[in-house]
Amino acid sequence: MLYEGKAKRVYETERPDAYLVEFKDDATAFNGQKRGQIEGKGRYNNRISEILFGFLTAAGIRTHFLHAVGEREMLVRRVTIIPLEVVTRNIVAGTLATRVGIAEGTPLKRPVVEFYYKNDDLGDPLVNRSHALALELATMEQMAWLEETALQINGILQREFSKRGVVLVDFKLEFGLLPDGSLLLADEISPDTCRLWDAASMEKLDKDRFRRDLGQVEEAYREILRRLEA
Amino acid sequence: MLYEGKAKRVYETERPDAYLVEFKDDATAFNGQKRGQIEGKGRYNNRISEILFGFLTAAGIRTHFLHAVGEREMLVRRVTIIPLEVVTRNIVAGTLATRVGIAEGTPLKRPVVEFYYKNDDLGDPLVNRSHALALELATMEQMAWLEETALQINGILQREFSKRGVVLVDFKLEFGLLPDGSLLLADEISPDTCRLWDAASMEKLDKDRFRRDLGQVEEAYREILRRLEA
Repeated sequence: MLYEGKAKRVYETERPDAYLVEFKDDATAFNGQKRGQIEGKGRYNNRISEILFGFLTAAGIRTHFLHAVGEREMLVRRVTIIPLEVVTRNIVAGTLATRVGIAEGTPLKRPVVEFYYKNDDLGDPLVNRSHALALELATMEQMAWLEETALQINGILQREFSKRGVVLVDFKLEFGLLPDGSLLLADEISPDTCRLWDAASMEKLDKDRFRRDLGQVEEAYREILRRLEA
Repeated sequence: MLYEGKAKRVYETERPDAYLVEFKDDATAFNGQKRGQIEGKGRYNNRISEILFGFLTAAGIRTHFLHAVGEREMLVRRVTIIPLEVVTRNIVAGTLATRVGIAEGTPLKRPVVEFYYKNDDLGDPLVNRSHALALELATMEQMAWLEETALQINGILQREFSKRGVVLVDFKLEFGLLPDGSLLLADEISPDTCRLWDAASMEKLDKDRFRRDLGQVEEAYREILRRLEA
């Protein structure tokens, strides 16, 4: 095992260019202050991520996904993660509501893209392009590419979710660097990292059910997978 | 009187295109949680701002400054203030140190520019360009102009302070909109809004002496004025 995070374990494999990622049932929120388990989450997120990476690959986005291994494991390309969380938002929710004082549920005229510095000790602070340059987290060209690619991915995922009666409210991406210096989408795309609302009822079908103690957490993850597989 | 802020009062005048600004001795910090008075600050900041606006005008930057009126008053062009504080930084200090975990005093390889949404209830949060667009605080073109102009002003002020043995660590600007839609520099430039360190001793000559209870606050403001007038 190379690394254990809040929701995944990463293992080295015999392939020098690949890692094995195992999705856990553990759930955390508020920078690790709230902890719990969501029955079946590892399986759901592994499969949901596989399907969503598939949509993106079909649309021309490069991802780290190679192939599924077991129920809760996937093989991915070995990358160096850029320590920035790239958050794209279509509707105001979560920390954006608190930051700018706009009510949760307000649609944005155009998507908002935010960068957070992945650093637990600092509480993953919001940073801008010039901070990222000062911290040498990415170059100016990479920052522009990350923002542009996040917006492209947003368009693709919005369309796919919309077909299935799901509103993509916001989501977090992470990107990785290959040895040749090129960037690709890494990490996962799942109800852990997206806000997904049922288009008819506006019911939450994502980790906010865990964060906010809304109940029926497992059911929400299962419902997202059911719609993606339908 | 049109408006009373933490450090200034703004009055309407007989000229429909001008306001009178009166600089107060009142000092506040930490979003108004700390309050006090700095003897003579109103006079010092009025004169310091006049001199610094003069340097900028000479270098081709448009400002709202028209002319000094009294010891603590200046006449300025009537503008609508863009509710963004534009902060430019050359050396890590204050909230940047806390945000990104770099020690105060660390020089930045290139300047960092930050935008804060002027909103006391929200605690003047850091925002990025896409937040400013979502809040309709400015257009994309205006955001680019604000950042570029802040960097230009940084270059001019760094040069002028450097000649006088002062390091410009960071500073906050505000900009205003004229009826014709053009932008110009507004507000003030003073030890209230800049971090200024003595180049030889690295002693603080700005409002941090008040914020951090370092003593000799008035002396610091007076010293900055003395060097600018020398």
